[in-house]
Amino acid sequence: MPDLDQILQEIAVEMAAEKDRGRVASYIPELGKVDAAQFGIAVAMNDGRVFTAGDVQKAFSIQSISKVFSLTLALGHVGDALWRRVGREPSGNPFNSIVQLEHENGIPRNPFINAGAIVVADILLEGHEPKEAIGELLRFVQYLADDASIHIDRSVAASEKATGFRNAALANYMRAFGNLRHVPELTLGVYYHFCAVEMDCLQLARAGRFLAHGGRHPDAGHSVVSGERARRINALMLTCGHYDGSGDFAFRVGIPGKSGVGGGILGIVPGVASLAVWSPGLNENGNSKLGSRALEILARRMNWSIFAPRN
Amino acid sequence: MPDLDQILQEIAVEMAAEKDRGRVASYIPELGKVDAAQFGIAVAMNDGRVFTAGDVQKAFSIQSISKVFSLTLALGHVGDALWRRVGREPSGNPFNSIVQLEHENGIPRNPFINAGAIVVADILLEGHEPKEAIGELLRFVQYLADDASIHIDRSVAASEKATGFRNAALANYMRAFGNLRHVPELTLGVYYHFCAVEMDCLQLARAGRFLAHGGRHPDAGHSVVSGERARRINALMLTCGHYDGSGDFAFRVGIPGKSGVGGGILGIVPGVASLAVWSPGLNENGNSKLGSRALEILARRMNWSIFAPRN
Amino acid sequence: MPDLDQILQEIAVEMAAEKDRGRVASYIPELGKVDAAQFGIAVAMNDGRVFTAGDVQKAFSIQSISKVFSLTLALGHVGDALWRRVGREPSGNPFNSIVQLEHENGIPRNPFINAGAIVVADILLEGHEPKEAIGELLRFVQYLADDASIHIDRSVAASEKATGFRNAALANYMRAFGNLRHVPELTLGVYYHFCAVEMDCLQLARAGRFLAHGGRHPDAGHSVVSGERARRINALMLTCGHYDGSGDFAFRVGIPGKSGVGGGILGIVPGVASLAVWSPGLNENGNSKLGSRALEILARRMNWSIFAPRN
Amino acid sequence: MPDLDQILQEIAVEMAAEKDRGRVASYIPELGKVDAAQFGIAVAMNDGRVFTAGDVQKAFSIQSISKVFSLTLALGHVGDALWRRVGREPSGNPFNSIVQLEHENGIPRNPFINAGAIVVADILLEGHEPKEAIGELLRFVQYLADDASIHIDRSVAASEKATGFRNAALANYMRAFGNLRHVPELTLGVYYHFCAVEMDCLQLARAGRFLAHGGRHPDAGHSVVSGERARRINALMLTCGHYDGSGDFAFRVGIPGKSGVGGGILGIVPGVASLAVWSPGLNENGNSKLGSRALEILARRMNWSIFAPRN
Repeated sequence: MPDLDQILQEIAVEMAAEKDRGRVASYIPELGKVDAAQFGIAVAMNDGRVFTAGDVQKAFSIQSISKVFSLTLALGHVGDALWRRVGREPSGNPFNSIVQLEHENGIPRNPFINAGAIVVADILLEGHEPKEAIGELLRFVQYLADDASIHIDRSVAASEKATGFRNAALANYMRAFGNLRHVPELTLGVYYHFCAVEMDCLQLARAGRFLAHGGRHPDAGHSVVSGERARRINALMLTCGHYDGSGDFAFRVGIPGKSGVGGGILGIVPGVASLAVWSPGLNENGNSKLGSRALEILARRMNWSIFAPRN
Repeated sequence: MPDLDQILQEIAVEMAAEKDRGRVASYIPELGKVDAAQFGIAVAMNDGRVFTAGDVQKAFSIQSISKVFSLTLALGHVGDALWRRVGREPSGNPFNSIVQLEHENGIPRNPFINAGAIVVADILLEGHEPKEAIGELLRFVQYLADDASIHIDRSVAASEKATGFRNAALANYMRAFGNLRHVPELTLGVYYHFCAVEMDCLQLARAGRFLAHGGRHPDAGHSVVSGERARRINALMLTCGHYDGSGDFAFRVGIPGKSGVGGGILGIVPGVASLAVWSPGLNENGNSKLGSRALEILARRMNWSIFAPRN
Repeated sequence: MPDLDQILQEIAVEMAAEKDRGRVASYIPELGKVDAAQFGIAVAMNDGRVFTAGDVQKAFSIQSISKVFSLTLALGHVGDALWRRVGREPSGNPFNSIVQLEHENGIPRNPFINAGAIVVADILLEGHEPKEAIGELLRFVQYLADDASIHIDRSVAASEKATGFRNAALANYMRAFGNLRHVPELTLGVYYHFCAVEMDCLQLARAGRFLAHGGRHPDAGHSVVSGERARRINALMLTCGHYDGSGDFAFRVGIPGKSGVGGGILGIVPGVASLAVWSPGLNENGNSKLGSRALEILARRMNWSIFAPRN
Repeated sequence: MPDLDQILQEIAVEMAAEKDRGRVASYIPELGKVDAAQFGIAVAMNDGRVFTAGDVQKAFSIQSISKVFSLTLALGHVGDALWRRVGREPSGNPFNSIVQLEHENGIPRNPFINAGAIVVADILLEGHEPKEAIGELLRFVQYLADDASIHIDRSVAASEKATGFRNAALANYMRAFGNLRHVPELTLGVYYHFCAVEMDCLQLARAGRFLAHGGRHPDAGHSVVSGERARRINALMLTCGHYDGSGDFAFRVGIPGKSGVGGGILGIVPGVASLAVWSPGLNENGNSKLGSRALEILARRMNWSIFAPRN
């Protein structure tokens, strides 16, 4: 096996030297003021070892990466009934497109675009107060990462809400089709708090371990989800995890991944490792520019593509 | 390892008993008259062993599965320049949609929808007579399967041409944007002959082996494509290989696959096996209904999903 | 000239006998409970005579017909600058489509679809409290009809608000593009009150007279709008006044008209008459079924089509 | 009545001085080489008088204006059955869009966009050789204008065919839905010859007279079409005659009109006059830039808008 530690250090050096770092999301001040010069990467191997490089303990807003955790939780609540309200196909459209909803009667294409994750939040709100639903997701992430210090940045959630007219459009639109059960404001409030979870690369890589372990929590030993469900979540991450750049990410990197507009990406190498990378500048599809590149290099050098024969 | 031979026999028995077999494609008589009761499956293991069950030596029209072979060949001709004329993203639309072409200036979303494969045919026609381009593809498939008896059913190609108004629309439309270099009739003639290749499950499984072997031809020993290119073709098969049912196929089956309207599916388990299944009845997305189900059962019982930890 | 009074009576008799009356809008209880058996028609001739037949003094919710009055008022406020925020083309889509907004950056196609009228309401809200903007529109309609008894049914406005998720989607979506200046809830509140104006056929026909008089108020004598503006509002009514049935209405009836989901239609014969018809049952495009038919018969018998030589 | 002759001369002078004349269509050499400096206008009054100014006897390619004549002829052949294959609504899309066809199953929105006119040509081809169908249309236009010298420029038709991939896409697409009865090549051949009719402003204004005369041929005395059909064709010209600029033309000019990419526009003032204007430079919607402006000025000064009270 190649020297993973050295590879990560080399990647960090290469990324530090990169001039064109993409554009930091600026639609809310909390994201806009983040320094684009940062880069971190963490790998939690299935054998328990952890490797890191760069700004690996700098917390960032996980944003859409939370969609992986909320989906997992919602599947636990309602099982495959969830798929009556959300599809499983790549969208072929930007992350916040509303066109598809009109053509497909308010059923979002998958749980990793905004509309789909809003439905997922609506499911988690069922029978609960918003505060409870938010608390449940936070505790779930803390449990997955085995780290009670993970928290939500409420100012991010508040800013999202104040500027989130497009999400409000999506939510109201789905409500018009009967695919939201709660008042859009409540569901959106929950959704925005999910997006506002703050984690660093180390915490994020640890939180993703169950997906690399066939559904089991490596510390707790028991199953978070069944092996089949873990496979399926990985499959969804691969086909839909990078919005309208998912095909390209699969083509270049070749591992299931979920990106967030805060610049983070969670990647899974089934049976091998959970990884997290972070660099705030985004490419034209809204995915971390250097994060994507770093994962491409790492997957190639480690032969981690799920599309390659394993050694 | 589970007893693969027994599993295949059980699957064949289960499929034989299935009442709801989907609908056989009927847009041309050559496909419409195929008996829906048939089912075959073949597995070419990377270690050289071959397992089969059912109607495994009955030739069928591979149709869109040919898109895998023509793409591989065209990448050999022009390399990554191909991606300036064809995208790499799932389409989010039916296989023969023209809407996306209007919105994206005549650049098809990926090489596995009709429009994309027509561009690929146009590339293979460059500098050649149609007859030569068709011959090259046929010889390539014969070489991959190591079987010179594979042939093209010219009556299928002729019927496709006679009824292929929607493909003619796609070709003319792309030509209007300058994304075809030849007269649409010529390019379409080549494309239709590619689709009309006849193979049985055994031949098809053998033809796909290079993708399970990291790009190498297991008999010839040398590389058909580089390991990176094999990975990338597998990735495209996973994200785009089943039209607007690609996400669902990844979710349920979890291996790269490419389906054809003749009822065949080619599946790849990188490092493990190349597989082919055939049953002529189609589901609502135009993919083999029993073929998809058979692969789902097989992948689960063999733990072949690329999204699962390997044993 | 044909005997208008007799024609109207004959039309009313014919409509009373009609079995297939369309479907009454049922998305709010206030509309759903209206008796579909009703029909009324009123004609305010430019020479001052008024002709009526049927349920002509039964008040109904004018709904989208209010878009004519709010547009007229908003043009008075901001003049042609309004056209920087709203287009002037038929939409080619249902009245509440959001697809077009995504493709055209939040600029609605015309002021007579919901999205366009919401922008118009937003303009009228500029510098005012919602209450003031609502009062201004009501007083304007009262002035046009010369009837201070016209009022707003606040329970209709409240019901619209409670169920108007699709309009909320439109408003939030346009706000995301910066094409609303106020909080969507406020703008929508104003919009819903505009829609909830109650009028009978007689009042409505009188309110439309200025458009048949080249912009002048026939009682007050002075101009409501310039002759050019009156022409242009008439043109918009013709090309966009019946949603995605505007072309058919122009084809069959041949006069500028604006329909509302309450079953009313305002029609203008420039230089000749303003007319109002009402029957609550709607056709598949959301326009009054019998109202459209009655206007078709009336226009034919009176030779009132603007596409015909006048006698 | 204003002095029409003087108004036309003033308009011609104003247009001659105009710097920004739009862009001449250049997709075929026959159109691309036309001198943009030209401008002509002709008015055939219902009382028989004719007024002209500018380059009024310079023949140009009438292009899409032929759609008015072919529609009239096809309605004579099959009557209202035509409307089962073509709609009557504005398209809300560019003239050569294919998106709408996919969403509406191959039924074009109206007979004045390319797809609709191709269906109309297909109807006229029914039971005839292409040569006969082309001859019938030409003789019809000659009869309407009372001028046997009107001819077709076959080199224009040939160039259209050689470059008309987008129209070929439309035709093949509609054929795929069964909405063409003939081989696309044949129907397109007929369509292109219709577009290639050459006329000057004087001839064109004369050819449109029947639409200003309630359907009657002013020379022959008898009816070309019924009064109702003339009204309806005028209505279609108003709502659909300028592609996705129809709403704006109605708003600004206010008379039924049909434009062609050769720079001509036919306008109808029912009961008053038929007019033709020509200037080869086009605006962003593909309509004559100066021609539209000239008609706007003329209609305003003559009070010819059908949306205004007549004097």
